[in-house]
Amino acid sequence: MNEKPFFSLDEYRARLAAVKESMHRAGTEVLLVTDPANLNYLTGYDGWSFYVHQGLLVALDRDEPVWFGRMQDANGARLTTWLSDDSIRGYADHYVQSNLRHPMEFAADLLRELSADKRRLGVEKDNYYFTGAALESLTRSLPQATILDANLLVNWVRLVKSPAEVACLRQAARIVEKVMAKAVEVIEAGVREGDAAGEVVKAQLSGTEEFTGDYAAIMPIMPSGIRTSAAHLSWIDRRYETGDLVLLELAGNRRRYHAPLSRTLVIGQPPAELEDLGQGVIDGLNETLAFIRPGVTGEEVEACWRRAISGSKVVKESRMGYAFGLNYPPDWGEHTVSLRPGDKNVLKPGMAIHVMPGVWLERFGFECSEPIVVTETGCEKLVDFPRRLFRK
Amino acid sequence: MNEKPFFSLDEYRARLAAVKESMHRAGTEVLLVTDPANLNYLTGYDGWSFYVHQGLLVALDRDEPVWFGRMQDANGARLTTWLSDDSIRGYADHYVQSNLRHPMEFAADLLRELSADKRRLGVEKDNYYFTGAALESLTRSLPQATILDANLLVNWVRLVKSPAEVACLRQAARIVEKVMAKAVEVIEAGVREGDAAGEVVKAQLSGTEEFTGDYAAIMPIMPSGIRTSAAHLSWIDRRYETGDLVLLELAGNRRRYHAPLSRTLVIGQPPAELEDLGQGVIDGLNETLAFIRPGVTGEEVEACWRRAISGSKVVKESRMGYAFGLNYPPDWGEHTVSLRPGDKNVLKPGMAIHVMPGVWLERFGFECSEPIVVTETGCEKLVDFPRRLFRK
Repeated sequence: MNEKPFFSLDEYRARLAAVKESMHRAGTEVLLVTDPANLNYLTGYDGWSFYVHQGLLVALDRDEPVWFGRMQDANGARLTTWLSDDSIRGYADHYVQSNLRHPMEFAADLLRELSADKRRLGVEKDNYYFTGAALESLTRSLPQATILDANLLVNWVRLVKSPAEVACLRQAARIVEKVMAKAVEVIEAGVREGDAAGEVVKAQLSGTEEFTGDYAAIMPIMPSGIRTSAAHLSWIDRRYETGDLVLLELAGNRRRYHAPLSRTLVIGQPPAELEDLGQGVIDGLNETLAFIRPGVTGEEVEACWRRAISGSKVVKESRMGYAFGLNYPPDWGEHTVSLRPGDKNVLKPGMAIHVMPGVWLERFGFECSEPIVVTETGCEKLVDFPRRLFRK
Repeated sequence: MNEKPFFSLDEYRARLAAVKESMHRAGTEVLLVTDPANLNYLTGYDGWSFYVHQGLLVALDRDEPVWFGRMQDANGARLTTWLSDDSIRGYADHYVQSNLRHPMEFAADLLRELSADKRRLGVEKDNYYFTGAALESLTRSLPQATILDANLLVNWVRLVKSPAEVACLRQAARIVEKVMAKAVEVIEAGVREGDAAGEVVKAQLSGTEEFTGDYAAIMPIMPSGIRTSAAHLSWIDRRYETGDLVLLELAGNRRRYHAPLSRTLVIGQPPAELEDLGQGVIDGLNETLAFIRPGVTGEEVEACWRRAISGSKVVKESRMGYAFGLNYPPDWGEHTVSLRPGDKNVLKPGMAIHVMPGVWLERFGFECSEPIVVTETGCEKLVDFPRRLFRK
């Protein structure tokens, strides 16, 4: 009944080898991984235990990484990872949310046990799950270590997806097609926003007849009316009314792999300015999708978008896309490639990008996006869902 | 159509005054709040924007706090908070997930504008949303500031709930009663775990006839079979089978306020050792609930539990409860009071505690919990749901 390991052991070993290669190049002898997506990527570890400090110690001179976390989650590591028992270490409960001791003191003890306390230690400095206090605790506990910023080191390895990962993305895409269809179906005047949100998340988790879904790293973003002028609001306790505009930024999730998708819906007659804006966004999106291929950079994609919308009424200051894939709350983005000025990253086959030209104006917004995978010759649109303004 | 402000302006002002009083006592002149729950607590701010850096600057010598975040979320602050426009500052998109500039440089500029760059600045050092890189960026950008650890300063103020907050907890409790009933109803042999999870979350968001629900800070914890030996696993893509044990740690959520609840269910005949274990946990929980009253400490409550289970087969090393309330992912716990040895905090009326005696053994686990609010004479059990092992 256990799903472990989800990918083949060969795949996990290849990922680990790529990370060690990257560590070697960066002059990092030991890496402390705290991003839950990176823990999962390297070992399969899966659990909602990231609300306490946990991590993975990857040492160049040790075959297996060492997982550490709260004792009551160690069985979770045994059940979901390919690690041997010797590489799974639980800490006592008096480390949890205590002002007397920090779990990073336990990590420092482990590093001493691995004879790695005087090494060059990389940490994911800007990760949600590596706090300022964690950095200070490690620095204090390991006076002879050299602490380096290895932020996103594993994320950059994750950027190009394997065929098995792309298969997960495609399954997530099947789910999000059903999720978006359900949202368009249930939202109408008189329906409570919370009831619509419930149907949306039920569709996310139920998935398809062939496979069920998992939780997305972001709960449904589905503001209505004036609230569509902000980018990240969810439902509130009201009933939809005729005239409401509704933004839908939703994802399907399969084994922690996402397929994010945005669409816009209007109940009743859309204002003329919205139709113009929407058509401008959709035309620009279509041109951008036709442009994407290996060899172009993130900023070149954005420049294509900017040219495409230059004759329209669309004004957009923010980035218009980003890499996505495996993730846990609070973000399905991978924080690597961004489609924006200054991004010199060259697109390669296997990269997954959410092309997301959302626009948020003073009184309303409009979103229409596509998640794609870069192929040898262009891009594969993961999702099959009409690109238009939906009217109810 | 806007829900702002959810609580009265008087309530927000009283919360802010209490935080400023606490800052004053701690010798903190300015406080950088990054915990999304604390942003909401002080201003009403609500949005899934915590995946980028954002915060609230609370200065003793400025009436209103200053919200800062990504430009596209500034309208969200206008729509959900009581702050005036002058106290809402959006940063340009080139700060987002960039290796060229950190959003805390924007915060440092704001502090200079407030003439607060040479002050004693408190930060929430061990909060998920205050990374090691954020601490380093602030330290570098504000060489004349004194940076202090103000971790949990606002959380300690949040610990005692107002009557309006307790009303939210009670509404969340109405929701979780329906959520748990739905879980017990739908889980049976042959049902896919993901379909059951979908029904559970739909019940969370649909809420009751009177009010809808909001997303909980933790997605359903509902492992089955051998996976019940770990504390924080969710559903997987399989069908329940006769003989399965299922742990259910679920919450209702109303306006970001939680009511968490745990129960255990068995499909078919429970093993005798599970019945003994379960009865021991439930008896111990009941004795503990009868003991809780103002004036006793966290460790005294835990000692009562320990005495109660001393004649049973229950062995538990981890804490058996914690403060909860308003929260965002990844945790509904408040990281203040814990029911465990060494916790000297004295319980007071208005504190909300999840009394959570979960036990995770080698082959299976058992959970039965109650969320309570301390009253003048004892405690109010928020939830009305049978405390027993459920059999299907």
